[in-house]
Amino acid sequence: MAPCGAQTTVPAKVVLMKILGIDPGYARMGWGIVDMKGNSFTPISYDSIFTYPDTEMPERLKMLYEFLMQTIEKYEPDAAAIEELFFNTNAKTAILVGQARGVAILACTNSGLPVYEYTPLQIKQALVGYGRAEKTQVQMMVKTILGLSAVPKPDDTADALAAAICHGHSAGSANRLRNLLKG
Amino acid sequence: MAPCGAQTTVPAKVVLMKILGIDPGYARMGWGIVDMKGNSFTPISYDSIFTYPDTEMPERLKMLYEFLMQTIEKYEPDAAAIEELFFNTNAKTAILVGQARGVAILACTNSGLPVYEYTPLQIKQALVGYGRAEKTQVQMMVKTILGLSAVPKPDDTADALAAAICHGHSAGSANRLRNLLKG
Repeated sequence: MAPCGAQTTVPAKVVLMKILGIDPGYARMGWGIVDMKGNSFTPISYDSIFTYPDTEMPERLKMLYEFLMQTIEKYEPDAAAIEELFFNTNAKTAILVGQARGVAILACTNSGLPVYEYTPLQIKQALVGYGRAEKTQVQMMVKTILGLSAVPKPDDTADALAAAICHGHSAGSANRLRNLLKG
Repeated sequence: MAPCGAQTTVPAKVVLMKILGIDPGYARMGWGIVDMKGNSFTPISYDSIFTYPDTEMPERLKMLYEFLMQTIEKYEPDAAAIEELFFNTNAKTAILVGQARGVAILACTNSGLPVYEYTPLQIKQALVGYGRAEKTQVQMMVKTILGLSAVPKPDDTADALAAAICHGHSAGSANRLRNLLKG
């Protein structure tokens, strides 16, 4: 029991969350699972999955979908973060990457996982604090925040982890705001 | 037994096939099931499925996927035909439509259905005999070939049926070629 007149401190709720980050693509899809506890992140597993041009597109999409379904089942993340695609002028590529992105979103939704989308600007802002930061700066921050010995390769893996960390920051901020409003 | 000297006629194998045609889109997806027997087509069922902007994209993609899975289970087609998207300059739209297209292809593949892709030029060529035909000419041919009283609406439904008929023609030609080479 707290002594009479002493202040009782109520610890702010710490956000505990396991996040799946995805960098969508049909030839190469980056993915990464991170644990977030308060403001700190721990890498659980991360890599990129490859599909090859000699495989028909329907089969490539199926491979990506099944891989993500298995990964979600294995690691049981609480949320998925996916980078919004950079809209370049090549609409043919955009459609193909869009197909892979649709399949990735579906794998999350069919696993009951909420999907959060972040623009490259939001991800740069969250990791580097500057929306126009260079890609290499974001990758270095992924390495630092996760305490890794090197930047994960290929870039898609680092980008997937960056999306996951971005969502963690965003969810953490929302939680702090809730605590503040409560009181 | 055939009389001596008389020519025996071997009937060419008639192609029997049930085809699912899909015109992919995230707000509206056309679909149509047709039966093909030799050179004639019979419409089985066709329509367009709508999803609405106030529904989040992951949920819209899930709805499209589930609808197609159920439709395939109900009608048991032998193959799916899907129109290749027209590559306009709006890459943002291309990505969104690509997502819906990816989900549609996945529904077919996950149902064990082979997926065949046709360009608008191939579809026009197959239905009108002229690759640069107007969209309305294709729609009129859909009506005529399927013996319908009117062009199916919306356009996406007619386009889906056109893709199915195009695949039927293509499969029929391949079969005739096989018979010719065998004979």
